[in-house]
Amino acid sequence: MKRFAVILCGCGASDGSEIHEAVMTLLAIDRHKCHYSVFAPDENQYHVMNMFTKEEMPETRNMLVEAARIARGNVLSLSELDISQFDALILPGGFGAAKNLCTYAFDGANATVYPPIAKIVKAAHQKQLPIGALCIAPVILAKVLGKITITVGNDPDTIANVEQMGATHVNTQEGEVIADKANRIFTTPCYMLPATVADIADSADNLIRTILENL
Amino acid sequence: MKRFAVILCGCGASDGSEIHEAVMTLLAIDRHKCHYSVFAPDENQYHVMNMFTKEEMPETRNMLVEAARIARGNVLSLSELDISQFDALILPGGFGAAKNLCTYAFDGANATVYPPIAKIVKAAHQKQLPIGALCIAPVILAKVLGKITITVGNDPDTIANVEQMGATHVNTQEGEVIADKANRIFTTPCYMLPATVADIADSADNLIRTILENL
Repeated sequence: MKRFAVILCGCGASDGSEIHEAVMTLLAIDRHKCHYSVFAPDENQYHVMNMFTKEEMPETRNMLVEAARIARGNVLSLSELDISQFDALILPGGFGAAKNLCTYAFDGANATVYPPIAKIVKAAHQKQLPIGALCIAPVILAKVLGKITITVGNDPDTIANVEQMGATHVNTQEGEVIADKANRIFTTPCYMLPATVADIADSADNLIRTILENL
Repeated sequence: MKRFAVILCGCGASDGSEIHEAVMTLLAIDRHKCHYSVFAPDENQYHVMNMFTKEEMPETRNMLVEAARIARGNVLSLSELDISQFDALILPGGFGAAKNLCTYAFDGANATVYPPIAKIVKAAHQKQLPIGALCIAPVILAKVLGKITITVGNDPDTIANVEQMGATHVNTQEGEVIADKANRIFTTPCYMLPATVADIADSADNLIRTILENL
């Protein structure tokens, strides 16, 4: 049974992990008869957004504690992630991935990546483990690894940024997966494009299936 | 295109709507080419649980604001729900359904139902709209409607309680849907039984398909 490490960073598209992408990733792993372990940094989110009013809330929330909502309590601190115990690494998206796991939301191409995430991505890449990323999360891989081929959909500004980071971009439509087989990087645009929840389910399933075909 | 009203009550199994059940309900509705609108009470949750430590948190969260995380902002206050605009009503589960939408978690068979929810369930039932409920949410229907046939899985205490409310219980295994066609009540056990996220996806899909077959 292949083992996937899934990294979340809260619970909600605006300030944490996008819920549909995270849940559909877990569903796809389960559907393919594989095992998942969920990890999140035991640190506060960058901020907390009210997703009804679209305004920032005067609150503090912890990424690990909030990720536990998506994982039904079955989550571990990112500091406990030993990548040698896994067959693949997955980074779901959500704007939180660009606020909490790196500073892309604020710094664009000059973003810095949260050091423990950079370390894990480098370690997984050195071990030639497949790394999958959804939505905006591929920017983290572009920033850490540079010369890889990824997709973030078709938004010109985001594409310009990832190209400035050294990555090659391929435009995609919903559901498509870009497989950079040489680097073992697998990306899919999800909510970087207009999409419904069924599109996200299809995209996540295609991502996990493509990774399994390349293991 | 058939229209489903989905009622949430927060975001997370311990204090709000169970995320996998809620998302898989939306996925099933989308997969069957139907439309969903999500509603939640604009009221505070009964409490806030830390799902990592399993301890209560000294916080206040609003059901509508938190439900917006699951619905990606596309949620309306329950007070805006006009059931005559819909073809079916769905109540996903989560312990929050038994804490926020009724007092079942505290009062068992003597539970009271949050009045706006009782009113909507009665109105839907009078209009002979199909009502679907997942996990623990069928207790709400049992309390409001009494003589209906439902499933909450196979837990003896819960079964005793719903029978005391006047309902007939049918034991189920994961994925099964109990269709009380005379009363147009459709229920499935989901996380009332040991289940994986793929089981929840199957259960939600069976529920929506069964409802559509009986519209």
